[in-house]
Formats: sequence, C-alpha cells, structure tokens
Amino acid sequence: MDSFIWDKDRKSRTGVAEAVLCSHKSSQDLQSIIRFNIEHTNRVLFTRLSAQQWEILPAELQQQLDYDKCSLTAMLNVAATLAPSQEVCIVTAGTSDLAIAKEAQRTLAFNGYQAPIIADVGVAGLWRLMDRIEDIRQYKIIIALAGMEGALFSVLAGLVRAPIIAVPTSVGYGVSAGGELALNSALGSCSPGILTVNIDNGFGAANAAIKIINQFTTSP
Amino acid sequence: MDSFIWDKDRKSRTGVAEAVLCSHKSSQDLQSIIRFNIEHTNRVLFTRLSAQQWEILPAELQQQLDYDKCSLTAMLNVAATLAPSQEVCIVTAGTSDLAIAKEAQRTLAFNGYQAPIIADVGVAGLWRLMDRIEDIRQYKIIIALAGMEGALFSVLAGLVRAPIIAVPTSVGYGVSAGGELALNSALGSCSPGILTVNIDNGFGAANAAIKIINQFTTSP
Amino acid sequence: MDSFIWDKDRKSRTGVAEAVLCSHKSSQDLQSIIRFNIEHTNRVLFTRLSAQQWEILPAELQQQLDYDKCSLTAMLNVAATLAPSQEVCIVTAGTSDLAIAKEAQRTLAFNGYQAPIIADVGVAGLWRLMDRIEDIRQYKIIIALAGMEGALFSVLAGLVRAPIIAVPTSVGYGVSAGGELALNSALGSCSPGILTVNIDNGFGAANAAIKIINQFTTSP
Amino acid sequence: MDSFIWDKDRKSRTGVAEAVLCSHKSSQDLQSIIRFNIEHTNRVLFTRLSAQQWEILPAELQQQLDYDKCSLTAMLNVAATLAPSQEVCIVTAGTSDLAIAKEAQRTLAFNGYQAPIIADVGVAGLWRLMDRIEDIRQYKIIIALAGMEGALFSVLAGLVRAPIIAVPTSVGYGVSAGGELALNSALGSCSPGILTVNIDNGFGAANAAIKIINQFTTSP
Amino acid sequence: MDSFIWDKDRKSRTGVAEAVLCSHKSSQDLQSIIRFNIEHTNRVLFTRLSAQQWEILPAELQQQLDYDKCSLTAMLNVAATLAPSQEVCIVTAGTSDLAIAKEAQRTLAFNGYQAPIIADVGVAGLWRLMDRIEDIRQYKIIIALAGMEGALFSVLAGLVRAPIIAVPTSVGYGVSAGGELALNSALGSCSPGILTVNIDNGFGAANAAIKIINQFTTSP
Amino acid sequence: MDSFIWDKDRKSRTGVAEAVLCSHKSSQDLQSIIRFNIEHTNRVLFTRLSAQQWEILPAELQQQLDYDKCSLTAMLNVAATLAPSQEVCIVTAGTSDLAIAKEAQRTLAFNGYQAPIIADVGVAGLWRLMDRIEDIRQYKIIIALAGMEGALFSVLAGLVRAPIIAVPTSVGYGVSAGGELALNSALGSCSPGILTVNIDNGFGAANAAIKIINQFTTSP
Amino acid sequence: MDSFIWDKDRKSRTGVAEAVLCSHKSSQDLQSIIRFNIEHTNRVLFTRLSAQQWEILPAELQQQLDYDKCSLTAMLNVAATLAPSQEVCIVTAGTSDLAIAKEAQRTLAFNGYQAPIIADVGVAGLWRLMDRIEDIRQYKIIIALAGMEGALFSVLAGLVRAPIIAVPTSVGYGVSAGGELALNSALGSCSPGILTVNIDNGFGAANAAIKIINQFTTSP
Amino acid sequence: MDSFIWDKDRKSRTGVAEAVLCSHKSSQDLQSIIRFNIEHTNRVLFTRLSAQQWEILPAELQQQLDYDKCSLTAMLNVAATLAPSQEVCIVTAGTSDLAIAKEAQRTLAFNGYQAPIIADVGVAGLWRLMDRIEDIRQYKIIIALAGMEGALFSVLAGLVRAPIIAVPTSVGYGVSAGGELALNSALGSCSPGILTVNIDNGFGAANAAIKIINQFTTSP
Repeated sequence: MDSFIWDKDRKSRTGVAEAVLCSHKSSQDLQSIIRFNIEHTNRVLFTRLSAQQWEILPAELQQQLDYDKCSLTAMLNVAATLAPSQEVCIVTAGTSDLAIAKEAQRTLAFNGYQAPIIADVGVAGLWRLMDRIEDIRQYKIIIALAGMEGALFSVLAGLVRAPIIAVPTSVGYGVSAGGELALNSALGSCSPGILTVNIDNGFGAANAAIKIINQFTTSP
Repeated sequence: MDSFIWDKDRKSRTGVAEAVLCSHKSSQDLQSIIRFNIEHTNRVLFTRLSAQQWEILPAELQQQLDYDKCSLTAMLNVAATLAPSQEVCIVTAGTSDLAIAKEAQRTLAFNGYQAPIIADVGVAGLWRLMDRIEDIRQYKIIIALAGMEGALFSVLAGLVRAPIIAVPTSVGYGVSAGGELALNSALGSCSPGILTVNIDNGFGAANAAIKIINQFTTSP
Repeated sequence: MDSFIWDKDRKSRTGVAEAVLCSHKSSQDLQSIIRFNIEHTNRVLFTRLSAQQWEILPAELQQQLDYDKCSLTAMLNVAATLAPSQEVCIVTAGTSDLAIAKEAQRTLAFNGYQAPIIADVGVAGLWRLMDRIEDIRQYKIIIALAGMEGALFSVLAGLVRAPIIAVPTSVGYGVSAGGELALNSALGSCSPGILTVNIDNGFGAANAAIKIINQFTTSP
Repeated sequence: MDSFIWDKDRKSRTGVAEAVLCSHKSSQDLQSIIRFNIEHTNRVLFTRLSAQQWEILPAELQQQLDYDKCSLTAMLNVAATLAPSQEVCIVTAGTSDLAIAKEAQRTLAFNGYQAPIIADVGVAGLWRLMDRIEDIRQYKIIIALAGMEGALFSVLAGLVRAPIIAVPTSVGYGVSAGGELALNSALGSCSPGILTVNIDNGFGAANAAIKIINQFTTSP
Repeated sequence: MDSFIWDKDRKSRTGVAEAVLCSHKSSQDLQSIIRFNIEHTNRVLFTRLSAQQWEILPAELQQQLDYDKCSLTAMLNVAATLAPSQEVCIVTAGTSDLAIAKEAQRTLAFNGYQAPIIADVGVAGLWRLMDRIEDIRQYKIIIALAGMEGALFSVLAGLVRAPIIAVPTSVGYGVSAGGELALNSALGSCSPGILTVNIDNGFGAANAAIKIINQFTTSP
Repeated sequence: MDSFIWDKDRKSRTGVAEAVLCSHKSSQDLQSIIRFNIEHTNRVLFTRLSAQQWEILPAELQQQLDYDKCSLTAMLNVAATLAPSQEVCIVTAGTSDLAIAKEAQRTLAFNGYQAPIIADVGVAGLWRLMDRIEDIRQYKIIIALAGMEGALFSVLAGLVRAPIIAVPTSVGYGVSAGGELALNSALGSCSPGILTVNIDNGFGAANAAIKIINQFTTSP
Repeated sequence: MDSFIWDKDRKSRTGVAEAVLCSHKSSQDLQSIIRFNIEHTNRVLFTRLSAQQWEILPAELQQQLDYDKCSLTAMLNVAATLAPSQEVCIVTAGTSDLAIAKEAQRTLAFNGYQAPIIADVGVAGLWRLMDRIEDIRQYKIIIALAGMEGALFSVLAGLVRAPIIAVPTSVGYGVSAGGELALNSALGSCSPGILTVNIDNGFGAANAAIKIINQFTTSP
Repeated sequence: MDSFIWDKDRKSRTGVAEAVLCSHKSSQDLQSIIRFNIEHTNRVLFTRLSAQQWEILPAELQQQLDYDKCSLTAMLNVAATLAPSQEVCIVTAGTSDLAIAKEAQRTLAFNGYQAPIIADVGVAGLWRLMDRIEDIRQYKIIIALAGMEGALFSVLAGLVRAPIIAVPTSVGYGVSAGGELALNSALGSCSPGILTVNIDNGFGAANAAIKIINQFTTSP
C-alpha cells in the first residue's frame, strides 16, 4: 500500500493524534500500517479492528498490540498506568451499550485519561439513575450512551451541570433499529446543551472530550 | 352531497360513536352533514374543524354547535355536565401540546368522562413530573402527550402502574419536526407496555381509552 | 459483568416484572444474568433468546429453563398451570405471524393469563375472519398481528367492541419489507381506537394488556 | 410558447389521447395551448387546472371550456351524452376522496364511458361495503380510491372478480399524510391482483381502464 | 400446524386460486401444507420456495412437485400442455430480470395461459426494443419488468396500445438498490396508463392479467 | 452587511466567476451586494432572485440589472451579444422544465456561450425526440432537463456521443414530487456516462459545461 | 394559561437558565409568560419569537423587551455590557447563516459572554477561511454554522485545536433543503471530535458552550 | 441463455463500448456471455465480477481473462500498453476508496487512457491535499472519490479549474453508511460545477470522462 500518508502532525495541529479506522481496510493494508508504525515507534490507536481482522494478523504483529475484543480496539506502544481522574465519566443506559462505552474508555486511556463506566442506568427504572446521580455529578464532562429511544440523554441533561456528549448506539429493533432514533432523540431533546456524535462513535466522543480538556487545562 | 353514509350503529358495534373528521371536507359537504344530524337529533362530535371552516358556516348552524377553537372540536346536541372521574388523566410534556390534549379531553367528555389535564411536566425538569406523580397515579389510564424527542413516555411508563396511551405531537423543529421522532420514541421505548396512536391523534387516544373502560366496566 | 443492575421492584412499581431482552447480549453476560436469577430464585422471562444463543449455553443452565424455539422465549422458575381465561385473545393475519404471536402468548402465560391464538384470518379471504368473529368478540382485549399491508387492524377494529392492540410484524417483501407498512397502517387507520406497539413486539403488547387488566381488576 | 409540441397521434398509437397537465404551467403557456386547440378544433382534456389558474383565464377562453371545480378538469369540444355502461365503476373509501374520483369519472367520460361513483364504503364500517358489493360486482373493472391506511383495496380485492385499479389519495395526517401509506398498502396488499397508480392519479387510473377496454373490445 | 385455513373458494370468488407464499414459513409448516393438498388432490402453486427450503423437503414430497429453481416456484397436480396464446407477453429490460419474469410466466401457465418472454430490450440500446416492438404489439396485455431506473416502462407505454403492468425488480446498486427507484419510475411516469405492482411481484402481475382476461372473455 | 467577502479570484482559480445565490438573503443584504458590485464595476450573475425580492429593490438598482422573471436571474454589467455556438445544447422533457432550462441558458450566456433550448421532447411520445435527435447530435455537450420519472436521461444517453449533464427538475406530484425521483433516475440509469447535478440546478449544470469547455479549448 | 410551570431552579441545577421557546405558542400564552416574568423581575431569554408574534404583542410588553428581528430573540431585564472574551467564536460558511449565528451570539450574551461572528468563510473559496484561521485559533470553543453540504465542519476540525460545536442550518435546496445534509456531514465527518446540535439550533450550541465554560472555570 | 442481445454498435453510437455488469447474473449466464465474446473475438470489460463468481468459472475461461480482484473487473482481448496521459487523474479521500478508484482506472485503461491515482488526500489533514494540488492541476478532468461526509468534493472544486466527476463511495458507518451522505454532499455542494455519478460507480465516472474526451478531441 504505497498510497498511505501518515498525518504525523495531527496531534500538534488538532490536539488529538491520528487513529486508524480499520473497517473497510484489507488485511494487507492493515499489516502495512502496523509495520510502518512499529518501525517508527509511533504510539497508535486502532479502532473497529474486528475479530476476523485480528485473527488473521501474523502472530508477530499481534504480540506488539494490546487488543481488546469487546471494544474492538488495539493500542501500539502504549504502556502508561493511569491515575484516577475527575475529568470524564461514561454513563450507559443498558448493558448492551458496553462495547461502545469501552471504545470511548480506551480512547480516553490512550490519551491519558482514566474514565469510569457507570452502566445500566436507563430511565425505565429511574431509581437506578437517581442512585448514581451524585457520583455522576463529580465529573466535568459526561459521555452518555443509549440505544432504543435514547430518553436517557434528556433526563440526564436536566439533572447535571456537566455538558453531555451523547453517543447514540445501534441497539434496538423495529423503529429503533440502527440507532437513528436514539440519534434524533439526542439532537431533538427538550433539554438544552446536549452535544451529539455519530451512531456508535465512542471514539469521536472521547476525542471531543479530550479537545475540551486540552483547551481548558493548557494554554491555547 | 348524496354520497354520505351515516354509520349509525357504530356505537353499538364498537363502543364508540362515529365522529366527523372535518379536514379535507368542503364547506358544502360539512353543512350537509351538520344539517342531516340536526334533523335526526343525533349527538355528534366534529374534529379538526378549522377556524376557517368554522367562520364560513352559516350563523344558524354555528348556534347549534358548541365549538372550541383551541382543540378545533365542535359538539352537537351534547349538554351533559360531567362528574369528576378517576378513569383517565391527560399528561403533557409542554404547553405547546395543549391543543391536542384538549381534543382528547373533549372527546372523553363527549363520551361521558371528565378527565383532568396535568400540563408542562416534561423531563427537562424532572421535579415537575415528580411533584405531580402521586396525582397521576390515582388514574386508571394515562393519556400522555409529548412532541420533540418524547422522552416523557419512557420515564412515565417506568413510574406508574397504569397503561400509557402515548400521543406524539407535531411540536418541534429540525429532526423533531412533524412528530415522527416522538412517535418512534413511544414505539421504541425501553419501558414496556406503552401503547401508541398516530401523531396529533388526541381523538384516537380518547377512543381507545373509552373502549378499554367499556370493556371492563360493562359486561362484554 | 459487574455492571448489571436488577430492577427487582419493577413489578410493584409498574405492574409488570422486568424481563431480559437477550439480543445484543454476549453469551457471558447472559450466563451471569441466568446464574444471578437462579441463585435468587427469581421468576424470569427471557425474550429474543436466539437458537444460537441457546445452543451455546451450558447444559446445566439449559436444564433450568423452559425454552420455546418458535417464540425465542425462555422462562425460569415458572411452573403454573393456567386456567382458561376470557381476558385476552390473540388474532393473526397469517401463519407467518405465529412466532410473534407466541411471544405474546408466552408473556401472558408468564404473567398468569392463558390466551388463545386465532390464526390465519387475514382479510384477503374475509369469510375466514367472519367465521371466527363471534369467538373473538368473547374477549376483553384483542392483540392483533399482521404484516404486509396490515389491513386486518382496520377491519377488526370496525367489528368489535374490544380495544385492539396492534402488533405489526416484519412479514412481507418490497414495500412491505420490515414491518414499517403494517405499523403505519395501524397508526393511520380509519377505524378509531387502535393502539400500536413496535414492529414484532409481541412482548410489549402482552405487557400493555396485563397493565390494563391489573388496573381494572385490582384496586389501583 | 414556441416550444410546445402537440402529440396528435398519441390516440392512434396508444389508445388514449394526449391530455394537458396544467400544474407547473404559467397562465401564458396555458392560454397558448388552449388557443392552439380551439383553432385546430381538437377535443382536449385539461387536468389539475386549479381555481386560481381558471379564474385568470380570459372570459373568451372560459366560455369554450366545460370546467368542473371539484375535479379541477376542463374539456374542450366535448359534447357527447353518454349511455349507462357496465365497464367501469368507481368506489371510494370516504367522501374526502371525491375530487380525485371525479377526475377519474370525467376522464372516462371524455373517452366515452359513463362510470358511477359508489362513495363512502370504507372498511371502518364494513356493512357499508357489504351493502353495495353486489352492485360493484356488476362492473368489469373497479377503480378504487382510498387515503389514510388504504385497507379498502385489500378487502375489496378479496371479494370481487374484477381487477382493481387502486388510486391512493393524499387524505390523512401524521403517518398517513400525503398518500404514501395508502400507496404502499395497495402495492403490499395480501390480496393478489391489485394494480396501482400514483397518488391522486385519477386520470391515470381512467386511462389504464380505457386501454384495457380498448384492447378487449376492439381488434388489436 | 393446526392454524392453517385453506381458502378453497378463492378462485370462484375472485377468479384466481389461492397460492402459497413460502417465504417466512418453516419447513414443518410447508410440509403440512403440501401434504394437505396432496391428500385433497388440489392444484396448487407455490411461490418464493427457496433452494434451501426445497432441498430439505422429503424426497417423497419433492417427487410430487414440479419445481423451477430459477423462478423459485413449484406446482402440484398441474399437467396441462398449453397452446400458444396472444393474451399476454412478458418484456424485460435486462437478463437480470429473468427470475421474476419466469415467476410471472409460471403463474400464467398455472392458470392456463402461455406467455412468451421477450428479454433484454432495455432503453440503453433503444434499437433492441424497436426491433421487437411489432411482436410486442400483437399481445393484449404487456407485463414489463425493469430494475435500475425503470425507464423501459415510460418508453414502452408511449409505443403500444396495450395496458402495461409494470413489475419493478430489485436489480441495481447505490440509489437503485432494492427496486424502489424502478417502482417510483413506474408510478410517476410521464406516460399515462401504466399499472404497477410491488417490487419483484411477478406473481401479482400475472394474477392481475388473469383477472382482466377473465372479466373480458367470460360472462361476469 | 459587513460580513460579506467577495471571492474576486474565483474565476482565475476555478474557471467560473462567483455568482450570487439570492435565496435565503434579506433585501438589505442583497442591496449591499448589488451596490458593492456597481461600485467595483464587476460583471455579476444573480440567481434565484425571486419576483418578491426583485419588486422591493429600489428602482435605481433595478435599472442597472438585466432581470429575467422566468429564470429568476439577473445580470450586472453584461452587454455581450453572442454568436451561435455548437458547444452546448439544452434539451427538456416538458414545457414545465423551461424555467430551469433558462437558468442554464442565461448562465451560459453570462459566460459567453449561446446555447439553444430544444424543449418538450419527453419520451411519452418518442417520435418528438427522434425528430430532433440529429440536431441534438451537433452539440459537444448536452444539458438535459426532466422531472417526473426522468426517463429522458437514459434514452438520450443511449442515442448520442455527447456527455449528458442531467438536471432533474422538481416537476411532478405524488411519488415524483420534489425531483428526487428524476434525480435518482439520472444517477441509477442503465445508460453509462450520465453526469448529474442537484435538483433544479441549471446554474450548476452550466458551470460544469463551462469548466469542460475551458479545459479543452484553452491551455490548462 | 394556568398550566405553566416555571423551572426557576434550572440554572443552579444545570448551569443554564430556562429560556422560552416561542414557536407553537399562542399570543395569549406568550403574554401570560411575559407578564409573569415582569412581575417576578426574572431575567429571561425568548427564542424563535417570530415577527408576527412580536407585532401583535401589546406595546407595554414590547417596551420591556429587547427584541432582535434578525435572530428572533428577545431579552427581559438584561442590561449588562459585556467585555471582550476569548472563550467562544462563531464561524459561518455563508451570509445566509447569520440569523442562526446571531441566535447563538445573543444566547451567549444573555449568559455573559461576548462572542464575535466570523462570517462567510465557506470552503468554496478556501483562502477566505485560511485568511482568518489564526484569529479563529485564539478561541477556546468554536461554534461553526453551515448549510448546504456542510463541508466547513470537516475542514475546520482538521485545522484547529478547539472543540467544534457544529450547527447545521436549513440553507440549501434540492438534496440539501432543510439542513439534514449539513447535519449528517457534521455527524459523519472524517475529522474526529466534532460535536453536533439540531438543525438551526444556535440556542442549543450556545448553551452547550456555556456548560463547558462553567465546568472548567468554576468549581463543579 | 438465449435471451441475451449484444449491443455491438454501442461504441459507434455513444462513444463507449458495452460492458457487462456481472452482479445479479448467474454463473451459467456469465459463461454464455464470455464464450460468446471469445468466439466473436470481442474486446470486453466485465465489472462487479465478484471473487465468488470468478472462482467458479472454468479454468479455460479464467485463462482468457485479465482479472483484478481489488476492482472486481476483468478484461477480454485487451493487450494494449498505455502511454502516460494528462487527460484524467483519479483522487481519493482515503485508502478505503481504492477498490472503486481502480474500477475507474481499469475502465479508462480499457478505453485507452492511463490515469494515475492520487490517494489518501482527504480534508481531515488539509496539508495532504495541498501538497499534491499542483500535480492534480495538471489534468484536464478529475475523478474524485470520497465516502463518509464527502467534503473533499467541495474543497477540491474550489481549488482547480478542471471539472470534477464525483464518485461517492459506500465507506462509512452510522449516518454515513451506504454512501448516500457522500452522494448528497457532491450534489448539494457550495462549490459550483461538480458532476456526480451513482454511489460506487467508478465505471460510470470513467465512461463520462471518455465521452468528454471523445467529444473534444475528435470531430463530432
């Protein structure tokens, strides 16, 4: 793959390093990219690296990567142990949202931030959310994930001071299949101040959170 | 309009009387229908009778009708004073849902049931709903109205024992314009047991409530 | 799966017990949930438990569950024999709707109500429906299932006093593929008083029926 | 308007004469077309000639045209009195479908066929249809019109031997607004043998009926 | 499958016999239906009987059926040899439309009509259509099939006297994937008098053609 | 309007000068832009300048502009008389497409190219197109306009060597309302080599034609 | 309007005060709300207060309000003069986005932040953006507005460190009409870290920016 | 397959030879077509010939074909070695667009034009595009490919004089899945003069480019 151009300055330019979206890429292209980055000792995050794509990678490459099969992410040359942080907290409506929640969590970790996941607090049983609301209020930014009708976004935004980054997930069936309904519920919410990213885009939500933190904790 | 056929047995057959949906009807057709029913001393409910349609009706017909310009409903030969009832309660997310809420209320009244409207308890300020939740719990059936993202339906269904008849309203803009989003939020809710009718269909919600009451309070 | 929160009070709060929607859940998560409920001797209903998910469960867990491969439901700790009941009747347009009809039937059974299925009475041969209409009229609530263009909902609603809970099914092809057409036919019906749930949501229809029965046969 | 080309041979080529669809045409263009046809003594049908377009035509042109404000059609040089015919019958679900029904009726008349309209036999009150079904069965082709959920098409097709030409109408609101739902109900019907035309296309339905009659009553 | 109701009078009532749509049916249900009809010596047409469904049928049932793997149709107790007929001709835009064309052809054959297929006459090479147009003009009804943008329908309808029954096919990719584009081209055609059925519905097109022939060649 | 930035180098950079899209602009903003360009003696094309916008412009500004109410375009400081040219020809399916055809024609004229309009050659009467096909073949680029089902694009592309720039128009009703159907017919055509622009975008089609001519008749 | 409930604690709970969305509200309801807030000397922001709604307000109420007819916002009891700030900058692709840009600007001003508008820097002329990019880089948060295809969002996000809050606007025609295309371009961008709000929701974008600032400049 | 009609004159008529779209074709049909063309020594291009279709072709046929598994194209009787050319350049936003880029490249090669691919110059890192812009400016026509939000089309069109033929690709997820978003971004671009083909239609883009070159480099 001679057509590949590494955007090595993206971090200094935009505050977040380039990551490799693995879907739609052939195994051959993936291997070229991994080898290139091993050679240059780059720290790299790989997202949407499917189990099938992972399994056919040569063992020598697998050994260099820290792969997580739930979130379908892998990291290269990342060894930091993170200290607890009060910057970002990840909240999910159901257990089915965990894969995407972990994509966000791993992306934050790759960038140096440890973020807890508070799961299964959807509004069908409002007490589950209310039981955890004080914990949630300790964080400066909330990444919230919900599929189906996405009512969690509106309720949460009415209860906390933190900005909500809504990640609609493709969990549901019938009219809620594919995540479009949860997406529109975030966008069309009666609670002002919700910010939205693409369906299942835990990576993008984490990137946005990092950009916010960068801007407000370092000089611009 | 010689092509008009009155379904005079609908009440005995289905439990709810035929009503006249006025939209898409010419003034001439409307007048024929009103006169026909005046002659036969029928009790009739007219829905979606727009201000324009109302204003060009002859005064002699207007005088026979009890018209409500907010809900766009009119009644003919209906004079009952209703006693308070614990059967149905109407709950709205915002003040913009009131026109449709009143269509439901007037339809219930036409059929003999007084139902209160508890308005403006949308989930952006959850305390507004929690303040009224005990009142709402006193009723056997809840008709809930919400536009925008319709998160009220899911939250309410998780808090009460009564069946929820959700009426999505066409209140909103951008992705929530037209009511489709609120409709899908009712259908795709994570809270089981929500029943849905068409967008802005306060009349249908009231009819369904009446059918339920009829079935369970009279012998089938 | 440490993130799982059991909503043990849902039944007392809403009248229907929490059920487990198995789709989008990993085998590991499912096993945790099943073991948790075996330990606590909870009565539980599992829905959308696919054949693949079922087959890879350990035999020891399978033995505890009453699994039905047509409706993809399983029950834990449910042993009641039900007496015939006149509360709910399930009506289907075609034989292809049977899987969802049985999901509704099993959900009702889990909650203590026996409901018959009257199948294959779609309107292409109206006599099939008319032959059974008197039987259908014996029930207080009708759960009706139809795919394709869903004309059954409108015809049925014009013939009976009972409220109709319409379950659109994803049976069809071309413009009727996926169930959206049948869903909209239920919502947009010319017969007033039809109540609708999500596509293929037999579980939700049964829950709504139970909520209605609870409200009208027990003190609120 | 020098760019206008009259398809004078369309009748001999396809069996139906060219008609003038007036929507999207300026008053100037309309006048040119009318004058051209007056000069050539052509028999012409004008469709979708709105009240506004009609009112601003010069009186001299209005006097030459037989305009019907309900169906928005006008005829030029058409004077035939028609004998009753058993070829085509027009059936409507509601009174709101009458404008389009009359467009079909006038188009048939322009081509020499008298067709009765049997109106207001929608399936919400099935007896209304059953009362007229023997009359309807006397005709060789049925043009059926319905808006909302269009259930009439399926029921009718299961009851008669004649081919049904379904004309979905833009009568409805919420999910049935615009006629798309009725259109899809005709296309996706469980009753085989329904033929469909565009929404509100009474003209097209009549043309198709005439083509059928032409083929089977004259040598090809 | 005790819930199966055979509509044995459909032929006398509507002019076309009931057929069995095999998609969405389990193998067990299919076998019940086949055995039932073998026992009653019924003539039956099975449609959308997939290769997978066919292969797992017991050999004893396979031997009774005349199966065509291209059109996915099977016939039971049908042995007629048909004489050439000038009633219906089937025209396709491309070779990819042949499977659906043969579904129409086999449905016509089941009902006693032999219809030729004139294939690959799409408008990208207009001369292919013009070369065959005189042949096509010999038939009383034309069933036309096209996928992609469906331009064949409009061109053909402007060239012949016969009514066109348009069958949009799900041939295409990008904006024409699934057949919706070809469907809408048939419905929205600038050529009047095109009649449309559902996407890939060769069966329905043939049924409609038979209903037309029945009405005009036998006394009603 | 101090926020307005004139892209004075666009012509040298891209080969086409910046034009002013007037829709969504207030009268005040329009006047600022016109005065700015009068002062700088710029040659400017204004598109989608509605009759309402035109009428409320001060007479002093109107006098400077060459306004065409059919195409809703205006030109400033453009006085060239054009010689006939064989570069581009504009073809329309119906007379209703003329406004957009003239937008393309005026945009070409503004850039120095005279292009004829060959109108009303839609495929419902194929002979109208065939009568003019030799004329059309004289041009190097064809801009084709069609609404409804847009079959003209496919037929034309199969008959000529010139590249076709398809402009779908918003002419139609029901499924063809708004131009989406004609757009998709151009994109999904079975005839290869059709190039498409946005619905009603005569301006864009002309710009593309000019870019092609610039590239091939001047040194790059 | 006795059903109106003022959420007076929203600011302390969520960091942003309740505002009044005026669309869908009757003049009578609006007057009640304005008088209520005059009586309680509340600082209030009114959004989407149309010219028609404004003009029929009594002069005594108009005099209390600071109304801006471009952004359709009004403020009550707001007199602060703001100091320049480096927190937020508003960037627009075209001049047609200014009304929504000013809604965001006024909402920020109501909350105490002065934000400049850098307008007309869409990517059709990339130099316009590059000329201003250093200015834009001085701000901590960027609110970006674009209609049509919304390419500005992706380009900008690749050039700056600040988080981008994208406001898609309903500027465009054909496939870009209504803002859905610009919305999806923001959500589906190849540049990570873009955050999106509903179409034309300048108010929501400003609210989100304020929530971010609140969290990072005050103790949580 | 006796129904196959070779359009042998298409090249002389339209300037581009007929190609064979292999999707939706059975192996048997494909073999017939290949053998037919081997016998007639035709030069043929096969597109969308999937790996599965390729693998089951008889070895004797495979040996005659030049198959490229990335672009899924095969050529028969094509042996030309091409000289470098300045006519067309192919530009892609990402490496995931390469398969379609190569379909365009191979189609151009089949017609005698060598075109380079400049890959991975999407706008998230604008410098990648700016680094190559002078190279790109050397070509007369640019075929640009992008998936996701397709912002490359607008930026590129503002930077070069060449006409842009935009090929939206089905690369993306969530709101950008399937290519519809990139397609609409090309159509709705703020940069005038972009020409668009169907999603993933590299073949069509190449054909259009060839038609342009043919028209301007040979006498018409």
